[in-house]
Amino acid sequence: MRENVVVIGAVALGPKAACRYKRLNPESHVVLLDRGQRISYGGCGIPYYVSGDVSDADELQSTSFHMLRDTAFFRDTKDIEARPGTEALEIDRAAKTVRVKNLATGAEELLPYDKLVIATGSSPRRLPVPGADLPGVHVVADLDAAVKIREGLSGGSVGSAVVVGAGFIGLEMAVALADMWGIGTTVVEYAPSVLPTVLSPTLAAMAQRHMEEKDVSFRLGAQVTAIEGDGKAQRVQVKTANGVETLDADLVIMSVGVTPNTELAKAAGLKVSARGGLVVDETLRTSDPDIFAGGDCAEIKNLVTGQDFFLPLGSLANRQGRVIGDNLHGLSSRFPGAAGAWCVKLFEQNAAGVGLTLEAAKRAGFDAVSVQVSQFDRAHFFPEKDFMFLELVAERGTRRVLGVQGVSVMGDALVGRIGAVSALMPHTPTTTDLSLLELPYSPPFSSAMDIVNMLGNVGENILTGRNNSIDPFEFAALFDERDSDALFFLDCRELGNAASYLKAYPGVWHHIPQGQLAGRLAEVPRDRKVVLVCNSGARSYEAFVTLAHAGYPSVVNVAGGMVSLNHAGVDPKV
Amino acid sequence: MRENVVVIGAVALGPKAACRYKRLNPESHVVLLDRGQRISYGGCGIPYYVSGDVSDADELQSTSFHMLRDTAFFRDTKDIEARPGTEALEIDRAAKTVRVKNLATGAEELLPYDKLVIATGSSPRRLPVPGADLPGVHVVADLDAAVKIREGLSGGSVGSAVVVGAGFIGLEMAVALADMWGIGTTVVEYAPSVLPTVLSPTLAAMAQRHMEEKDVSFRLGAQVTAIEGDGKAQRVQVKTANGVETLDADLVIMSVGVTPNTELAKAAGLKVSARGGLVVDETLRTSDPDIFAGGDCAEIKNLVTGQDFFLPLGSLANRQGRVIGDNLHGLSSRFPGAAGAWCVKLFEQNAAGVGLTLEAAKRAGFDAVSVQVSQFDRAHFFPEKDFMFLELVAERGTRRVLGVQGVSVMGDALVGRIGAVSALMPHTPTTTDLSLLELPYSPPFSSAMDIVNMLGNVGENILTGRNNSIDPFEFAALFDERDSDALFFLDCRELGNAASYLKAYPGVWHHIPQGQLAGRLAEVPRDRKVVLVCNSGARSYEAFVTLAHAGYPSVVNVAGGMVSLNHAGVDPKV
Repeated sequence: MRENVVVIGAVALGPKAACRYKRLNPESHVVLLDRGQRISYGGCGIPYYVSGDVSDADELQSTSFHMLRDTAFFRDTKDIEARPGTEALEIDRAAKTVRVKNLATGAEELLPYDKLVIATGSSPRRLPVPGADLPGVHVVADLDAAVKIREGLSGGSVGSAVVVGAGFIGLEMAVALADMWGIGTTVVEYAPSVLPTVLSPTLAAMAQRHMEEKDVSFRLGAQVTAIEGDGKAQRVQVKTANGVETLDADLVIMSVGVTPNTELAKAAGLKVSARGGLVVDETLRTSDPDIFAGGDCAEIKNLVTGQDFFLPLGSLANRQGRVIGDNLHGLSSRFPGAAGAWCVKLFEQNAAGVGLTLEAAKRAGFDAVSVQVSQFDRAHFFPEKDFMFLELVAERGTRRVLGVQGVSVMGDALVGRIGAVSALMPHTPTTTDLSLLELPYSPPFSSAMDIVNMLGNVGENILTGRNNSIDPFEFAALFDERDSDALFFLDCRELGNAASYLKAYPGVWHHIPQGQLAGRLAEVPRDRKVVLVCNSGARSYEAFVTLAHAGYPSVVNVAGGMVSLNHAGVDPKV
Repeated sequence: MRENVVVIGAVALGPKAACRYKRLNPESHVVLLDRGQRISYGGCGIPYYVSGDVSDADELQSTSFHMLRDTAFFRDTKDIEARPGTEALEIDRAAKTVRVKNLATGAEELLPYDKLVIATGSSPRRLPVPGADLPGVHVVADLDAAVKIREGLSGGSVGSAVVVGAGFIGLEMAVALADMWGIGTTVVEYAPSVLPTVLSPTLAAMAQRHMEEKDVSFRLGAQVTAIEGDGKAQRVQVKTANGVETLDADLVIMSVGVTPNTELAKAAGLKVSARGGLVVDETLRTSDPDIFAGGDCAEIKNLVTGQDFFLPLGSLANRQGRVIGDNLHGLSSRFPGAAGAWCVKLFEQNAAGVGLTLEAAKRAGFDAVSVQVSQFDRAHFFPEKDFMFLELVAERGTRRVLGVQGVSVMGDALVGRIGAVSALMPHTPTTTDLSLLELPYSPPFSSAMDIVNMLGNVGENILTGRNNSIDPFEFAALFDERDSDALFFLDCRELGNAASYLKAYPGVWHHIPQGQLAGRLAEVPRDRKVVLVCNSGARSYEAFVTLAHAGYPSVVNVAGGMVSLNHAGVDPKV
């Protein structure tokens, strides 16, 4: 059946939907248009192009076997009419036409459609501060913008940079600048920690510390109030709790989120949410059943909260593109939503997560708790291994898993764990499901009791009142009050581990090896809050059980132990 | 409540159950006994101890912070009475006692129990052939046996070895011998491919080829008929389709599976299946509600087939141990079964899987098909990457996912993918669930369309008749018949890729770039089976769509393309 399909937007979702549909219905006529000259490129690869990891911008626009996805490619291999440099000006839903303009010639044209796909994506925000649109202030809008940034870097005139925003792209750009170009880079973030919407303060501190070791500086809880500059030298004015500071930078990159591009859809009378995203149903149809939308311009259902949310990710756009391709052909494919899985590589450190952080869970109305676990990513006797830190966010009462986040230098291993949890998320898992989760096991890859199982176990113990843990920052706050008579810090490791702390904190740091605790209860006061610590949290949990069984009224256990305190940078200094 | 709990078997499940229960009920008296002197060690680590990766056997018996889990450890830190070197002789269910014998002194004793745990594990099989129990023929029974093998290796008297059995432990031992000790190693396997119960012939060939590159030799489809030897020099007689061969070996390791240790349970009248495993319910109770069992001596439900099966894995034993610990205390924890997730590291190659292979699925009565995909494990433009090969086994009609297996040099990345599929398995996923699976995405970790999503997409296309693929071995069989007038081999890559094949196979190898195919259909005969090939299977699928749309009656497409043919060792030689 010959149908006319017009796809507005030719990055990620647009090409995917067009190609899938065209394969299902080779008779159809598909037009794929885009304002930009470059189409069908991997936008998520931009930081790796800026860094130089990806040597040529064309690589981001090529297939895995090095064919450039240009107009000729779409014509010859896909029988799709691609029109780069073409802007959609207006959708006439009654006449079923799109008025488009060739940006080079200015010529306008009406394209008829039977079905329309809106894949207009999103645009980077700029802060509403003076100077935000100066020529020295870049946003990571598209591949052409990235080419300009890299030209500046290649020229060698950039020695210092300020990145505004410590989200995914901001941090990836900071890594690109500092790692590959050796540029002195400062990241300014309004929130008090990096990746604030997706990581807890503890895990964020671990990621931040690693980046600081790689010479990236941070100003957190900091507000950019103005930018001055001539394109060559910029001055970024930053207000923090300590006052106002001015950061000099040859280059400023602003990465403070994106806004869905929905003007065209709004003008056509399509339903757009208060948050600004196109509203679609599970078949990815807009309020007009002949018009589909997905990717960065549309909202989707959050499988954890049940509310619509906005998840601008190339992977999501690709999966949605296939669903739209199916439904253009009259199949009934559905896109049920997403739990919000993500990952990011920051030098040799990695972070990943899915679902809600504790803060996000509370904001969404859940009675939520979180618990952290530190464990080797593989069998502890295996020679090559490193620590992984995971945090579970769960709902009291139901013990439902609301989110899991983590940090580890073992990137693929971390992402694998988060991927497994993500696979469970549509099935409303509980902590028991994590305890029982079946993961492939062999010592070079995991422990016999995998860290995800352990996370479920610890979570269950916390939620059933069998354990009572505090996170590293809560420990640090208590340790700041260490001279208080109300606190008793008890190190339950062997003496070799505890000795230097006993020396550094006499009268404050106490020590009974966990194996001796049951016989030495007389040394532990009952009228103080006992703060238990060991290396990883395992022995302090055993000690917790001993004290709880002996009727101690107030005992807490440092989740993740000294390893977590150390990685978060809040271990007592000796 | 003071209860007497006796746990028979102190490796993996036994200690886990004992410790969990003891924490839940600190009043209880728990006895943990084992025939062996070494208890609570990581048996899965034995190949890494034999290789020398793990330098000391004590490391396998230690906590992650280097405390040896011996009798004193269990007494002091767990308040558990561990009795190594103690054999359970008889269970008197009426009297609720276990008669035990101290293997050092010969003294017998009756231990009363309120609840009993049978964690007797399994024993390695020996082939019923002459010489199978000679002193030069070792089985990987326990850590003590491993210590003996390594002593022999350290002595430097072992220059050649034969490993009988190409299952997990056999291959891991072959790697240990060849990689770390440089020993000329031959693996003899009765089945026609390695890891025959868990990998398809194609994926197995990929794993085998890598091991051959590392100088391990194989005799597949080969039967050991006799062994002679004096402990120093052995002669292994092997019968293959080509005749009888004798392999000389300083060391023979026999690794041909394990048998559950259930004599004690059987003698006590507990229910044991025809396959020889203890029968337990979801609470891991045996036919006697006061007696629990799990780990290698018990059977569990296979979540794919619904039938009981036998999965001797330390990870499963640990998860079950916790469930038993809960239920000893009167909680109602359940162990629903397993889908059979596994992974193995073979030099720099890795294999992993979950669920059924095509062969196993057919044997279980499923109307199953399989499909293979090859793709980079991360964004193709990212500098560090490598191919991953996945195979999907799915049921016709329902499109239910019955299994996924894979091979890749990117081990954690592969295991992560299999882990995500494994997490889905209890929820009876379909190919659509794989297409929509939400995995964390960033270019250093994955493609925007992850290989698991791609596997779902390709599977769906196959199952709905939109694609028709053959695997590398099916291609090889067709290519053997290449002079037949019934076949037309069509390379749809660019000329640069195809040229050497055109030269090597004139008149057989044909070439039309996929982008030109629609305009050059006259060159493609309609009365022959058209065999399409490209690099990865993507362009040949586009070509398939073109030919199918043009009404070609017989077209097949090589799944995974030249990359898979090459890795499986069946690409046409040029």
